[in-house]
Amino acid sequence: MNFQKTYNNFQSIVNKKIDQLLPAVDIRPSRIHEAMRYSITAGGKRLRPILVFTGHTFFDFDSIIDPAPAAVAVECLHTYSLIHDDLPCMDNSNFRRGNPTCHIKFDEATAVLAGDALLTYSFQLISGAYKNNPSICCAISSELSTIAGSQKLIGGQVEDLMSTQDNSINVSEDDLYFINLNKTASLISSSLVIGALLADASKTQIDIIRDIGINFGLAFQLIDDILDVTSSFEQLGKSTGIDAKNNKLNYATKFGLDRAREKANDYTKNAVDSCRKIESDTIFLTMLIQSMAKRIK
Amino acid sequence: MNFQKTYNNFQSIVNKKIDQLLPAVDIRPSRIHEAMRYSITAGGKRLRPILVFTGHTFFDFDSIIDPAPAAVAVECLHTYSLIHDDLPCMDNSNFRRGNPTCHIKFDEATAVLAGDALLTYSFQLISGAYKNNPSICCAISSELSTIAGSQKLIGGQVEDLMSTQDNSINVSEDDLYFINLNKTASLISSSLVIGALLADASKTQIDIIRDIGINFGLAFQLIDDILDVTSSFEQLGKSTGIDAKNNKLNYATKFGLDRAREKANDYTKNAVDSCRKIESDTIFLTMLIQSMAKRIK
Repeated sequence: MNFQKTYNNFQSIVNKKIDQLLPAVDIRPSRIHEAMRYSITAGGKRLRPILVFTGHTFFDFDSIIDPAPAAVAVECLHTYSLIHDDLPCMDNSNFRRGNPTCHIKFDEATAVLAGDALLTYSFQLISGAYKNNPSICCAISSELSTIAGSQKLIGGQVEDLMSTQDNSINVSEDDLYFINLNKTASLISSSLVIGALLADASKTQIDIIRDIGINFGLAFQLIDDILDVTSSFEQLGKSTGIDAKNNKLNYATKFGLDRAREKANDYTKNAVDSCRKIESDTIFLTMLIQSMAKRIK
Repeated sequence: MNFQKTYNNFQSIVNKKIDQLLPAVDIRPSRIHEAMRYSITAGGKRLRPILVFTGHTFFDFDSIIDPAPAAVAVECLHTYSLIHDDLPCMDNSNFRRGNPTCHIKFDEATAVLAGDALLTYSFQLISGAYKNNPSICCAISSELSTIAGSQKLIGGQVEDLMSTQDNSINVSEDDLYFINLNKTASLISSSLVIGALLADASKTQIDIIRDIGINFGLAFQLIDDILDVTSSFEQLGKSTGIDAKNNKLNYATKFGLDRAREKANDYTKNAVDSCRKIESDTIFLTMLIQSMAKRIK
């Protein structure tokens, strides 16, 4: 298998599906649909939707259900979280993936509403696309709303902001773990899980997949933390050193680059090892996990 | 039937269910759960959840499904929309129902996230509570996500904000209709519809109910517009004349109080007349529509 070719193929399917499934710009009111499309099409690895496809291919041998709407739903949800995180009252970021963030390109109100609309649209996509498989539809909607909720994705962002206000002094390793688990790893993990749920995978297989995703997601966030310290704006397409600028600790600034790299390697190894427990062909996922551990942007 | 007693009874059920179903304040991170509860328990008529119960009682003679989680979900969604509308970058309102708004009581970031969390929680409630009736679960999730989306609730807010930036000069009657329909009437209507969907009402009955709700909702918003002009802070518990202060037109300021009252009466009459088409006891709904038309806050 040519990993990069397979990845690029998934990526172009995701990009095509995003274009097909998002509301058209000329639908009233245009401004909100323009802002939604601006943010979701402004680059991005498409990691999470690709994980939906990947989780699905493990178990779906009959191709009964199309995973594309769920994959797009997950990317809508991820994009909403980035738009809101970038707001002046949160991380106050002006650039993302080399482009002005939504509130800079449009305005703050439009950015809040575009985020709201993408979050809402993720549930609309799922409840519309899978209504003929209502049990699966419910299960995915439950998974996505739980992982996006106040105890997970939003909870992670709340503690991230609180750790900043706290002047980072009292931020413990446990706090950083809570933030990384809930802000990043849970949605990465859920993306794989949603793919598997669409293919009606067994509870045992779902548990294994969730565990792989959590380890992969924790490694992914640590690499992000390291890159925030070591990379330039040109490499990342976003402001770097932003955690330090915002007086925000990340794992690399708190415990040093070496320990962060070591931890990232441990999580990566755990994720790769667990791939062997899936009763399917996991070469692509294994290579994806390894490639993300080595990424420089 | 004693209307006020029935209304108060519904209201206390809703308040009790909100307290039961919202995440407890001591769940990590406390701050977000405190903010969610602060905003949703800060008074309010509970009109939308009461409409869920009302729509449900028309058709559910066997009481198989508990409408309470859906009723609370609708109130979560409504509260999210108020928190975000009140933000400095939107209507910039410091008071709501006599209390400081969420961003004043907490801070702007917490208000954005509490809104996000309530929106997300509405879908979590539905997908959790009705998973044993997956078709109904999907139908409600689809109804709620559509009505809350970029072409409805959020679309109305976008055009509302645009009409302000436009200095109100070019705002047409059609624009105001779009705003009132989508910002207010659609969710009021959907609340009744969701109740009926829970009771597996027929397509014909759902269509009638949706029409009643739209007329009721349009009347409700016109009364709001009139009260914004004629009432005091003490009566409403929120800043009045806020539309004028924000350079925002409403129906009453654009076409005058008399025409707004006339329109409100027309919509109220339409709603009440259509109640007769429902094959059930609609005395409470009829009295509710009439009482809201006469309200002074």
